[in-house]
Amino acid sequence: MASPISPRTLKGFRDYLPQDMIGRRAMIRTIEAAFNRHGFAPLDTPALEYAEILTGKYGDEGDKLLYRFTDHGEREVALRYDLTVPLARVFAQHKGALPLPFRRYQIAPVWRADKPQRGRFREFMQCDVDIVGAAGPMADAEVLGTGLAVLSDLGVRGARIHLNHRALLTALLDHAGVAGDHGQLLALRAIDKWDKIGEAGVRKELAGGVGLDAAAIDRLMTVFSTTGADSVATLDALEALVGANEGTVRLREVLALLDAAGHGDGVQIDPTIARGLDYYTGVIYETRLTDPKVASMGAVMSGGRYDGLIGMFGKDAVPAVGISLGLDRLLAALRELGLVDDANHGAEAFVTVFNADGRVEAMRVATELRAAGVSAEVSTIEGKLAKQFKRADRRGCRLVLVVGPDDAAAGTVVVKDLTRGAQTIAARAELGACVLELLGAR
Amino acid sequence: MASPISPRTLKGFRDYLPQDMIGRRAMIRTIEAAFNRHGFAPLDTPALEYAEILTGKYGDEGDKLLYRFTDHGEREVALRYDLTVPLARVFAQHKGALPLPFRRYQIAPVWRADKPQRGRFREFMQCDVDIVGAAGPMADAEVLGTGLAVLSDLGVRGARIHLNHRALLTALLDHAGVAGDHGQLLALRAIDKWDKIGEAGVRKELAGGVGLDAAAIDRLMTVFSTTGADSVATLDALEALVGANEGTVRLREVLALLDAAGHGDGVQIDPTIARGLDYYTGVIYETRLTDPKVASMGAVMSGGRYDGLIGMFGKDAVPAVGISLGLDRLLAALRELGLVDDANHGAEAFVTVFNADGRVEAMRVATELRAAGVSAEVSTIEGKLAKQFKRADRRGCRLVLVVGPDDAAAGTVVVKDLTRGAQTIAARAELGACVLELLGAR
Repeated sequence: MASPISPRTLKGFRDYLPQDMIGRRAMIRTIEAAFNRHGFAPLDTPALEYAEILTGKYGDEGDKLLYRFTDHGEREVALRYDLTVPLARVFAQHKGALPLPFRRYQIAPVWRADKPQRGRFREFMQCDVDIVGAAGPMADAEVLGTGLAVLSDLGVRGARIHLNHRALLTALLDHAGVAGDHGQLLALRAIDKWDKIGEAGVRKELAGGVGLDAAAIDRLMTVFSTTGADSVATLDALEALVGANEGTVRLREVLALLDAAGHGDGVQIDPTIARGLDYYTGVIYETRLTDPKVASMGAVMSGGRYDGLIGMFGKDAVPAVGISLGLDRLLAALRELGLVDDANHGAEAFVTVFNADGRVEAMRVATELRAAGVSAEVSTIEGKLAKQFKRADRRGCRLVLVVGPDDAAAGTVVVKDLTRGAQTIAARAELGACVLELLGAR
Repeated sequence: MASPISPRTLKGFRDYLPQDMIGRRAMIRTIEAAFNRHGFAPLDTPALEYAEILTGKYGDEGDKLLYRFTDHGEREVALRYDLTVPLARVFAQHKGALPLPFRRYQIAPVWRADKPQRGRFREFMQCDVDIVGAAGPMADAEVLGTGLAVLSDLGVRGARIHLNHRALLTALLDHAGVAGDHGQLLALRAIDKWDKIGEAGVRKELAGGVGLDAAAIDRLMTVFSTTGADSVATLDALEALVGANEGTVRLREVLALLDAAGHGDGVQIDPTIARGLDYYTGVIYETRLTDPKVASMGAVMSGGRYDGLIGMFGKDAVPAVGISLGLDRLLAALRELGLVDDANHGAEAFVTVFNADGRVEAMRVATELRAAGVSAEVSTIEGKLAKQFKRADRRGCRLVLVVGPDDAAAGTVVVKDLTRGAQTIAARAELGACVLELLGAR
């Protein structure tokens, strides 16, 4: 006999049991509602793509992390790595069928053969909104405002988007004397680690890897320390150093629009934001949660304008701006902040079954509850009532209903409220209304 | 320069554009609501599993259709092929954390490297409900009733579950003189094709592949033609032929319970239902839509009791019963029947932007609408109003709002109803209420 197969998930993958799903599902619903309210439409794309669609888009490191294989038809295929490259493919493939500008959201898992760490998985859910085909500040502001509205709808207080612009970054690097595309790229990569390695670490990288002298590093540090809650004051200070430029002009426009959308307090100009990926061309941003309990979690929502990427499968450049929310990291933060209700994963009402003769009556009662819109489980195992009560309690069911032979004859049902420890005798004719009342305002 | 990469999806895979997603999303919501109302809780599992978890569970043919490869850690992995084997793994792995009986639903894509045909894809969504840990008729009836409630909630009229039982099948085969497990299995497989190849085709297979003589085939045909709208009469007729048995007893119990749940008209005893897979041990069923427009679509929802499968990763046998709904096939049927509203994939209201100076005011108006709960898109491209109206219309937006410089000064907004061709001048202070009223009862 073959040795039994051990039931296990792959490293970096996980199951979501009902107790994990309820809060997660509610969160996804809230996010979708916010996306819809802001005029974004849903898109879904296959988990598998031709490998050539995905390779070469995420850098050498990204290419290595692709789940890639040869399929039954000898095609090279790979699992979706993010939602942006599939969007670019969809845009090129279905352009004629899409309304322009194309405002879409996609909430879907992506796969990366990354080293699993605490809070980092090989399969994880991304939530992206993007506007494709609009180059102006309205699109930037719409995407940022939608992101902030999502966080606010989820009950998050004190989230702040740290906002920058690639043109401002370039002007700041020029001002500090960091010359050449390659040198600037290396410097940006060092600055991008500010959050992780601190000022001392960044200074060390700028001296070593980038090869800047002490004076240039000091100038960079002055420039990159210019930030604060007053975004306009920050822009004024930066313009005093390097002059007005495409970046500062756009950031002022975006700030005014976010102010009009009621999100003025949700953003902060921050010249240290550089973003790891090399494809951003305009505004760039990361979101931090300010509550000390979760401040160390890093960016929960980030993105920027990337006018070169969407056009890669076609002939023309296509402007695009987007924001991506890491669902599971944010969910972990929400749980930490006590903003997720994971308790109730059972039905609202549990209908017990006294014995085999009582099945039909129990099924009738459950059917009446469901018709009234109550979520109801009917016991599928007969036997001791005490055990059935325990099962109902373990699931988090609020009410337990008993229809004994006497009740059936009398046309009544006993309804026990497990939360309050109270008991009601309900007439069958009014059962739905009675249970709805016990469950409270709905 | 490298030749451009052609933007395309893999054969058997497809994108869901917003116009495809809206109806599909609404359908999934309806299904989830019905599952919740019937006391089933959501579960999610990884797309990738250890290959050894999946292989050997779906027969040789199924094994060949697995998307299987070696991952970065030299592990043999495979994409999920159905939702039942992952459920068995979850049950063995997390048993202590699950309430028993475990009632779960899962709505998730599965992957099969099948030959793509009309309506058959390599990536498709399954919706499964199962009750694990309950052997009695209540569990059978709960699963069947939930399936019928889903169809009813989706607006389907005239759906019928064709119901059979493996013990009844065996009794019928014994009666017809088909002996031995292997012979019976071959005969079942032939009978399972009744729907596809008709009575003549089944007769041919029974004579050829199974090797039955004409008398045995005649006896089988008599038995397997016994069906009709009156399920109790069908059972009476079958018992008259082969006597009462475990199958007929259970079917009578299940019928009584479905009757109590108001689904008496939704089922029909049908001895030709055999189900292709070999793991069913009790009730088995397939669902047919009776409307002639979609009757040829085949089974949209099927399943049965499979008391041997869930325990395969553990030591003990675990009873289980479930039903699986093919989302995309059913969606195609719903579209055919005119039960899907695909029209509106845009926001309810579209806010135009007159020129760059009007951006801030347009953003304020959009923000007010969203605060009132209206789904609103604000134009991210300025320019001719006529073009903006066209864009709004193409998206299916119902209302278009114009805030010109005069309107801003007067504190008014022009609201045009594209459906009715009417125009309203709304005071800014009452904009949300006015738009909600125009959108009708919500």
